[in-house]
Amino acid sequence: MKPTGPIPAGYAAEGGELIVAGRPVSHWIAEAGTTPLFVYDGSMIDARVEGLRRAMPDRVSIHYAIKANPFAPLLQRMARLVDGFDIASGGELAMAMAAGMEPARISFAGPGKDDAEIEAALASGATLNLESARELDRALAIAERCGVTPRLALRVNPDFDLKGSGMKMGGGAKPFGIDAAAVPPLVRRIVASGGEWRGFHIFAGSQALSSDAVIETQGQTVALAVRLAEDAGAALPHCNLGGGFGIPYFPGDEPLDIVAVGAALGETLDRLPPAYADTRFAIELGRWLVGEAGVYLTRVLDVKESHGEVFVVVDGGLHHQLAASGNFGTVVKRNYPVAVANRFDEAAWDQPQTIVGRLCTPIDRLSDKVALPPLAEGDVVAIFCAGAYGATASPAMFLGHGPAREILG
Amino acid sequence: MKPTGPIPAGYAAEGGELIVAGRPVSHWIAEAGTTPLFVYDGSMIDARVEGLRRAMPDRVSIHYAIKANPFAPLLQRMARLVDGFDIASGGELAMAMAAGMEPARISFAGPGKDDAEIEAALASGATLNLESARELDRALAIAERCGVTPRLALRVNPDFDLKGSGMKMGGGAKPFGIDAAAVPPLVRRIVASGGEWRGFHIFAGSQALSSDAVIETQGQTVALAVRLAEDAGAALPHCNLGGGFGIPYFPGDEPLDIVAVGAALGETLDRLPPAYADTRFAIELGRWLVGEAGVYLTRVLDVKESHGEVFVVVDGGLHHQLAASGNFGTVVKRNYPVAVANRFDEAAWDQPQTIVGRLCTPIDRLSDKVALPPLAEGDVVAIFCAGAYGATASPAMFLGHGPAREILG
Repeated sequence: MKPTGPIPAGYAAEGGELIVAGRPVSHWIAEAGTTPLFVYDGSMIDARVEGLRRAMPDRVSIHYAIKANPFAPLLQRMARLVDGFDIASGGELAMAMAAGMEPARISFAGPGKDDAEIEAALASGATLNLESARELDRALAIAERCGVTPRLALRVNPDFDLKGSGMKMGGGAKPFGIDAAAVPPLVRRIVASGGEWRGFHIFAGSQALSSDAVIETQGQTVALAVRLAEDAGAALPHCNLGGGFGIPYFPGDEPLDIVAVGAALGETLDRLPPAYADTRFAIELGRWLVGEAGVYLTRVLDVKESHGEVFVVVDGGLHHQLAASGNFGTVVKRNYPVAVANRFDEAAWDQPQTIVGRLCTPIDRLSDKVALPPLAEGDVVAIFCAGAYGATASPAMFLGHGPAREILG
Repeated sequence: MKPTGPIPAGYAAEGGELIVAGRPVSHWIAEAGTTPLFVYDGSMIDARVEGLRRAMPDRVSIHYAIKANPFAPLLQRMARLVDGFDIASGGELAMAMAAGMEPARISFAGPGKDDAEIEAALASGATLNLESARELDRALAIAERCGVTPRLALRVNPDFDLKGSGMKMGGGAKPFGIDAAAVPPLVRRIVASGGEWRGFHIFAGSQALSSDAVIETQGQTVALAVRLAEDAGAALPHCNLGGGFGIPYFPGDEPLDIVAVGAALGETLDRLPPAYADTRFAIELGRWLVGEAGVYLTRVLDVKESHGEVFVVVDGGLHHQLAASGNFGTVVKRNYPVAVANRFDEAAWDQPQTIVGRLCTPIDRLSDKVALPPLAEGDVVAIFCAGAYGATASPAMFLGHGPAREILG
């Protein structure tokens, strides 16, 4: 038997059935007409943003990184909840605007922006987080050609990383942003160009669960932003502190203490010199805002035994939930939280069961040798932590089954 | 500097530019209108099938596993070249039929077939490779309800695996097929049911480069099929021997010796008892037929230095070429073969260059610290071995850039 990650807080059974977004899973499956299906709990997202606002200092804006989950109804809801959207492509710019987010509250980072993307972003009034000196050249040339005043920030590659983070985005040689030492002259160039100087974007890592690590990184980030602004002799209108807030996926993971993070950030900002009284800060979160609010529901098609092991074949798979199968940026495969949705409060069997997707490849394994009630054809398996980096971060066309349904409840 | 895999045979430069499918890459980019782009060389695929036919015994059919690359024009061409298509979903059934493959030459394997897929396959006249006793029950019930004579084969989970294969599909507990010991009574049940008994499907592994290993496995597979047919007291009309032929992706990889494989298989089949004189065999290949015939072309958007390392940012990435980034079923990231397509015969620089995709994630790294001519904005990077498990095995919607163009040349 192998352990599974902890089921996020807020999920319970009613009449034995898992409730998601206030209704039993059978309701959502009937509404979708079929499995597999992602259900996102809108109220849980509301509560998440609200809790974060309470924890964070007033001068810290909350941004949503839409790459985590760009499902249109979710984006529309999120556009009314948060202070800004962070995007990473021209496609995401269109999605953000379609969701009703005003362009002045959109910022666009990404190491490989093409000219069409830069033009669309500048023309809309979104802020570009520039990733290189050359990208600054291109943005200024495009702005001049189009006759717009560009809103320009610089993405900084910090000299530190976020300790314990799942993905390091800073510390040493990186493809993201501009090495800190090269930043001050570029700030001066932006200011001198007549473009609107929008400050820094500094993203040191993602998926950290240690509040000490996040606090340390945020302190370093604020200090770096101030030092770079001083070196450049420029004001600091805005600083995006990045994100990095993780969620528990795996056995032993504990939620991040955001109250501690917010309190420490408040103290850090309170200590800033008076020249920074009007500086706005932002934190940019994707996974932390939506990850736990999503559940992937997939129905059992077959249960079979092979050489004494039990395999449960479901109608979903890695074409929808690549990260849960351990094939997306993780080295060691561990089990996401999982349950039997239609018998949520039933006791586990003492026989390990391995849940495999329907794809004809040995890497399509959603849960390895887990303790669950004995599964049967027709049962519905719920995989939690499916709200971020699920539907759009998986190869939906692989083997021709097509994408999963998505519902915001 | 880190090594790269070998560029497949058959690629050369003309006027310094890489030729794919008889024309310079600039021609294909102009035809597509943009990068990134997959170009598949139809003549190379023709030659591949032809060479394989020469190497294989006459009584061995060649099947294409369309999951490797289901691009419609490629499927249409392949339908005229090979003897059958192997599919893994109802979606692939529709693609196979749209490509002009007659259903009697289609066989459908996959551990999680739903009722609608089983019905569509049986109604069309395709062969079902049944993966469990329960799936046999379902197929017989659906056939009776629909009034069709089902064409039924059994997929066997062999007691051996393909040594050195990238993905093991047999040997011990597996979600695929039926444990060999449980097979004979199911054969008898199919024969007794009045369904058309179509024999066995035995797939022990994939991506093997050792001819000795493939020869040994094919010998074991034929022996197992004969033993199971004898045990069941049934004839053996057909046996799909699986595939497993690998292609060189990584440094040190050498092509599989298919002439040796074909000769050994011929001897194996010649030694079969007379009762098997009419048995047809098939080998089922995806990657080996199309992998080397595909090139992924992506243009350089930016070249930047960070802490002494050179990063080349291209307009493609893991959303099209997940396997090349090392994030799809591989544990150790190694470099696929790569070249500068517009300066194919230029000497490499002594400065390592790392080619990253445009996605805002550190896992989007296509080539790590490779030796190439110094890259500049506008250059076109070619990543080889892109014909299989590229476009459809990657998360095309991730970060909103959308899918790559594909062309069959």
